[in-house]
Amino acid sequence: MAVLNQTLSRIQPLYQEVVEKAWERIDNLTKPIGSLGKLEEIAAQVTGITGKIYNRVEKKNIVIMCADNGVAEESVSACPQSVTAAVTNNFTRGITGVNALAAFAKADITIVDVGVKADFRNAQIINRKIAYGTKNMLKEPAMTRQEAIRAIETGIEIADNLAKDGVDLLGTGEMGVGNTATSAAILSVLAGIAPDVVVGKGSGLTETQHEHKKRIVRQAVALHHPDRKDVIDVLSKVGGFDIAALCGCFLGAARHRIPIVMDGLISSVAALCAYRFNSLVRDYLFPSHLSAEPGATYVMEELRLEPPLHMNMRLGEGSGCPLAFNMIEAALYMMNHMGTFEDAAIDIGPYVDIR
Amino acid sequence: MAVLNQTLSRIQPLYQEVVEKAWERIDNLTKPIGSLGKLEEIAAQVTGITGKIYNRVEKKNIVIMCADNGVAEESVSACPQSVTAAVTNNFTRGITGVNALAAFAKADITIVDVGVKADFRNAQIINRKIAYGTKNMLKEPAMTRQEAIRAIETGIEIADNLAKDGVDLLGTGEMGVGNTATSAAILSVLAGIAPDVVVGKGSGLTETQHEHKKRIVRQAVALHHPDRKDVIDVLSKVGGFDIAALCGCFLGAARHRIPIVMDGLISSVAALCAYRFNSLVRDYLFPSHLSAEPGATYVMEELRLEPPLHMNMRLGEGSGCPLAFNMIEAALYMMNHMGTFEDAAIDIGPYVDIR
Repeated sequence: MAVLNQTLSRIQPLYQEVVEKAWERIDNLTKPIGSLGKLEEIAAQVTGITGKIYNRVEKKNIVIMCADNGVAEESVSACPQSVTAAVTNNFTRGITGVNALAAFAKADITIVDVGVKADFRNAQIINRKIAYGTKNMLKEPAMTRQEAIRAIETGIEIADNLAKDGVDLLGTGEMGVGNTATSAAILSVLAGIAPDVVVGKGSGLTETQHEHKKRIVRQAVALHHPDRKDVIDVLSKVGGFDIAALCGCFLGAARHRIPIVMDGLISSVAALCAYRFNSLVRDYLFPSHLSAEPGATYVMEELRLEPPLHMNMRLGEGSGCPLAFNMIEAALYMMNHMGTFEDAAIDIGPYVDIR
Repeated sequence: MAVLNQTLSRIQPLYQEVVEKAWERIDNLTKPIGSLGKLEEIAAQVTGITGKIYNRVEKKNIVIMCADNGVAEESVSACPQSVTAAVTNNFTRGITGVNALAAFAKADITIVDVGVKADFRNAQIINRKIAYGTKNMLKEPAMTRQEAIRAIETGIEIADNLAKDGVDLLGTGEMGVGNTATSAAILSVLAGIAPDVVVGKGSGLTETQHEHKKRIVRQAVALHHPDRKDVIDVLSKVGGFDIAALCGCFLGAARHRIPIVMDGLISSVAALCAYRFNSLVRDYLFPSHLSAEPGATYVMEELRLEPPLHMNMRLGEGSGCPLAFNMIEAALYMMNHMGTFEDAAIDIGPYVDIR
């Protein structure tokens, strides 16, 4: 708990005076005020994070938290549980969706086993296994309070290390069969919404299976009655190691003043957990896409964020982050290279005869 | 008219059998079916355009059609008319929004004067001036039928030349004070919607000025009663040289089987004109962002397209295209580099012990 508390206490607000200077420049760029929309907002937010008007991303990394969920035994996913281990391993082989998209965006990935139900003999997978998957939340709390704290602090540790390595733009992803069920459960508690509204079809359930999944999530929430004011209680009773660890990444990124990108439903729910720990976290968050999972809209509303990308994606793995990286870098490039109204006025005379 | 007719007759459908092969591969990539959403659709569409399953973009170009609009004298814009010439010139100086974003995306730009009310002494601006701006559509047709055809054929010529130069991804942009008024007028006629619904605030009108602009567009449409079945009639009476020329670019790109990206309201209305000439054009179109102009939603509905980017942008210039270029290239990269389920299954055994 010491690491968590220390991290929470070190999160600071944006450099507001730098943000104001940034907006002065943005409003003076040669375009109608506000006409570059979210690109302007992204550029301004980054200046408040780094304290510099001009920014360049040098080192991008997507952290992928991998873990199994006990509730998978209730058939809440279209995939068998072994897919968690198989895909976690495939991240090291460069063949997954996030591998391809991260390579396109020239971003590295960090693969962390926080609780996969398998043993890896693979040095590329960072072993921080807390258990071989969580317990089945339909029958008992998914994890103990201590395990939840340990998962969060694992995420903080990973963010600490990446900050030390000079990473200046972070993304978040996950792999864990059953984690659209756990994230829907957390979201329903934190946002006070009926589970039925936020439970989606994940990787491809039929209507009947979808109804079954709703029932499971509803029952798990009803059984444990997590305290919505206590994020650790919620995470431990109906969460997962992946979500708790990602929550830690968001906290760590905010503490180190690193912009951090949310992917789909699961990582956004982790961001919401981090935000509930400390509302300053929101200043460091960048949404990427609006996931096709129904909960995505609600978590964005809770965070008051509007994702720039509407791609109808629902893969997870952090696959939306590389696309958002491009957008953020485009915004910074605009800030660094567009001319101002003063530049625009110079020397037009000799080259143009207005009729 | 010969060039236009010849171009229209040469537009062919997608290579459907290649699209089907592409979907076989996409559905066999190591991810749940459909989970990469629009990235999958973009990748499949490009294969149908080029006839190849694996594609790479080598040469990107954004065509910016620049022209003045006679209706500007009715105060339908927050900018003085001279801004058209000044910004057109600034495109050659690398300081505008599209300059910065195109440079970020490693795309070239092509600047065409199809009717700016100024003379340029600048070799970087291609001179295809049809007139020093259109006539005021509130009083008379914006241009003659012959001029409209000439503008369209100018766009075709530009696309022809870029195709000859090996450009394999096109973007579209414009500069012309008053062109949110002309594009709203065209859209209202082509879609059969009241002008009031689609007229927006352009580069930044007050409420009163916005009401005035609505009245002007309404009166111009009522005066000319353009025939919505005759695109040339609509373009000549309430259009602009920029929109007509961009319409030609869309036709030329489709004829040469080059993917072409729409920017905001104005270029999307030009795409709608091209689509009305020949509905096969739609297969070659790629939306970029949903402009903040109210007409944008309607033109996307007419085209049955859903822009992947929701950036709240309204700059024009083609500034949304470089962002879409990144998205398209990400989709192609995914197609070229993601592994299949066969790849995924190989060699997992020795590295993972499922518990």
